[in-house]
Amino acid sequence: MALTPPPHTTTEEEQRHNNNNRCHMNLAISPNCTGEPQANLSAVINHYLHTLNHFNLRNLGYPTNQNFNYDALAPLLQFHLNNAGDPFVGSSFRLNSTSFEVSVLDWFANLWDIQKNKYWGYVTTGGTEANLHAILVGREQFPDGVLYTSEDSHYSIFKIARLCRMQCVKVRTLISGEIDCADLKASLLHHKDRPAIINLNIGTTMKGAIDDIDLIIKTLEESGFSRDRFYIHCDAALFGIMLPFLKTASKIISFKKAIGSVSVSGHKFLGCPIPCGVVITRSEYMNSSSRDVEIIGSRDATITGSRCGHAPIFLWYAIKKKGSIGIQNEVENCIANARYLHNRLSDAGIGAMLNEHSNIVVFERPLDHQFSRRWNLACQENIAHVVVMQHITIQMLDSFVTEFLHKRSFSYGSFQPLCIAEKVGAANCSCSMHNLIS
Amino acid sequence: MALTPPPHTTTEEEQRHNNNNRCHMNLAISPNCTGEPQANLSAVINHYLHTLNHFNLRNLGYPTNQNFNYDALAPLLQFHLNNAGDPFVGSSFRLNSTSFEVSVLDWFANLWDIQKNKYWGYVTTGGTEANLHAILVGREQFPDGVLYTSEDSHYSIFKIARLCRMQCVKVRTLISGEIDCADLKASLLHHKDRPAIINLNIGTTMKGAIDDIDLIIKTLEESGFSRDRFYIHCDAALFGIMLPFLKTASKIISFKKAIGSVSVSGHKFLGCPIPCGVVITRSEYMNSSSRDVEIIGSRDATITGSRCGHAPIFLWYAIKKKGSIGIQNEVENCIANARYLHNRLSDAGIGAMLNEHSNIVVFERPLDHQFSRRWNLACQENIAHVVVMQHITIQMLDSFVTEFLHKRSFSYGSFQPLCIAEKVGAANCSCSMHNLIS
Repeated sequence: MALTPPPHTTTEEEQRHNNNNRCHMNLAISPNCTGEPQANLSAVINHYLHTLNHFNLRNLGYPTNQNFNYDALAPLLQFHLNNAGDPFVGSSFRLNSTSFEVSVLDWFANLWDIQKNKYWGYVTTGGTEANLHAILVGREQFPDGVLYTSEDSHYSIFKIARLCRMQCVKVRTLISGEIDCADLKASLLHHKDRPAIINLNIGTTMKGAIDDIDLIIKTLEESGFSRDRFYIHCDAALFGIMLPFLKTASKIISFKKAIGSVSVSGHKFLGCPIPCGVVITRSEYMNSSSRDVEIIGSRDATITGSRCGHAPIFLWYAIKKKGSIGIQNEVENCIANARYLHNRLSDAGIGAMLNEHSNIVVFERPLDHQFSRRWNLACQENIAHVVVMQHITIQMLDSFVTEFLHKRSFSYGSFQPLCIAEKVGAANCSCSMHNLIS
Repeated sequence: MALTPPPHTTTEEEQRHNNNNRCHMNLAISPNCTGEPQANLSAVINHYLHTLNHFNLRNLGYPTNQNFNYDALAPLLQFHLNNAGDPFVGSSFRLNSTSFEVSVLDWFANLWDIQKNKYWGYVTTGGTEANLHAILVGREQFPDGVLYTSEDSHYSIFKIARLCRMQCVKVRTLISGEIDCADLKASLLHHKDRPAIINLNIGTTMKGAIDDIDLIIKTLEESGFSRDRFYIHCDAALFGIMLPFLKTASKIISFKKAIGSVSVSGHKFLGCPIPCGVVITRSEYMNSSSRDVEIIGSRDATITGSRCGHAPIFLWYAIKKKGSIGIQNEVENCIANARYLHNRLSDAGIGAMLNEHSNIVVFERPLDHQFSRRWNLACQENIAHVVVMQHITIQMLDSFVTEFLHKRSFSYGSFQPLCIAEKVGAANCSCSMHNLIS
């Protein structure tokens, strides 16, 4: 019979272990410290850079592109840049980068099929702020709206619902990770007297599943929700840039559909040293939810007040440097490498799944916690995933699979694959029972 | 009779003007762009650096220290660093800087008189997230609590109240900008059946006024609010680092008082290229308001999910490099220079005010909008201010005053000082009427 590891939660002991791991360097700051000599500071930074380089060699589990070079932007670290306020209004704080920001926003607006004069948006501190802003736009439209989102949604969505004091209905998902529209319909009908605010996942965090926008709009209509009684936000943290560059998926994200907003992370596919994101919404929603603030000579239309001026420049630089062709090549390469990994795992008898248009390969969770940690895998219950980003080479994937197989045979002898059918479907499961069936 | 300029609000025309100002460079990204040659990108960045240097010569109005050097940290731009989750728990994303973050937090905890095992906190994306987190901690303690804050509070507080669906009572201020405890008492009594969540300003944005924590606690007690029925958050965006280093003000911010949280901006006094902040609260509040998130191997206890790994390193580096003596010298120097500016303005017959322990000099708003813009002043109704930060030299202040006086005499001939008594008090006003009285 296949082994099933217990769901892994962080124990107190592991927390201490993590903390110990973090304390190779003495970073404590004495309350009465005198200024530290530059040589000491540089030694600490150099040591830290060394560990980062080491970790990066096996950095497989998270959707952050680590393959970038922003050396040309290093002189910008001499300034505090701040885009406080509305990027389209400008600001009386002149060390801003709103001109870069607006160029980046225009590019995303075009990517997602909305005209310049029809959209509003800004560069956020990351996916959570982008989702928060978008869901708030929905709440401003429908103060008594119910928020619907699938159980596979990013943890930020449930946090946002609590923060914003909104009722949140968690909808079931299919095996792929996609929202189950039958369950959505039942939930909608249960609350049919209240407007619907829907958070869609254009790429779920764990499985990279894409909720079907067209099917969801059809479900809303069938459940009696006319266009003036729902608001759809698309959380496209990773795939928001990727899908438009895939021939078979380029029309998935489009403001020609009845959606209200789209968000994407900047540090994921494009790659950026610091977390950032983009949210685009329809300009018609923005009239009621902001106010002029004289002291910054702008309009307070964003969640955060002081906003990073460097992030929009990183994004601008990345897009300009790669160009459309460059981005398309990167997307195709990541997806091809994900298919390669999926095939290698399946061929080796490891249960694995790869959704269409996705670079996230889901597979049996390694039983060895240290192995998962060594490869920086993201794990959830009995599955783990690799997100095949630009810094991940075929050589890294080969090493990973080889070590995974070696570890299994070494640790467990005649190892039987885990049963993960419930998570990835029988067809993708390699356990003795499902392997026989398929 | 003294002239009073109309309150200045940004007109449509000025907005377009701002936008035009921003468009010296062609930053547009064509939808079908090929990758841009490095030389072109570098030319844009160099041009932008030139304008930043130009603006920085007259950067007087905002509390952002522009006098820093983080060249030694430039190699960190090669990595995306991410402190997702609780800094004390660690994370399965190994390219993090939580060890730096915890050192920085420990330093602030000590600065504000709370023991290591008694506090929890994190490095935020700026003052707004820090205030949002703190006010949410208050709301978690008292779900039906009423939020009280003075009319001189930062605009983020009113936005947070709306975001969090909390009733917010705006309390009047004294001439200094400090909260009026008589009005606070009346408001508390008006809602005496509901717990109180109080946002205090340890330095208001415009006037740098410090709300009196002890007097507010006394007011709460006198109004029948026992310790288990109120929560106090201290928004110490700028002064949170400064006051502890001033002999006469070092005990103002202290967790030995009945306060629940303190926040400070990292990019203000310490100086940081990107906006960031710190929030410290009592660890006893943190049990109920977070949950474990397996995919990041941490606890979701922060507002944002992906959190900047670079910001804590900037803060750590700044504190380590300056040391306590260095910070104290900078604080004393800024305050001395603020006094110098205040004296120069007063001596020249310009109405001006400087609160105790403050580096924010408030004065008559220049009538010439271009002059204010040239010196990057922050203005509100008929007053403006200079925040004397580390990059502002006596020479800059002298040039500013000289140009201000020249502009006034040149533009208006026999210029009469404005009456700003209502804003800064009769004693600080230089208009013909109040000048005679004083």
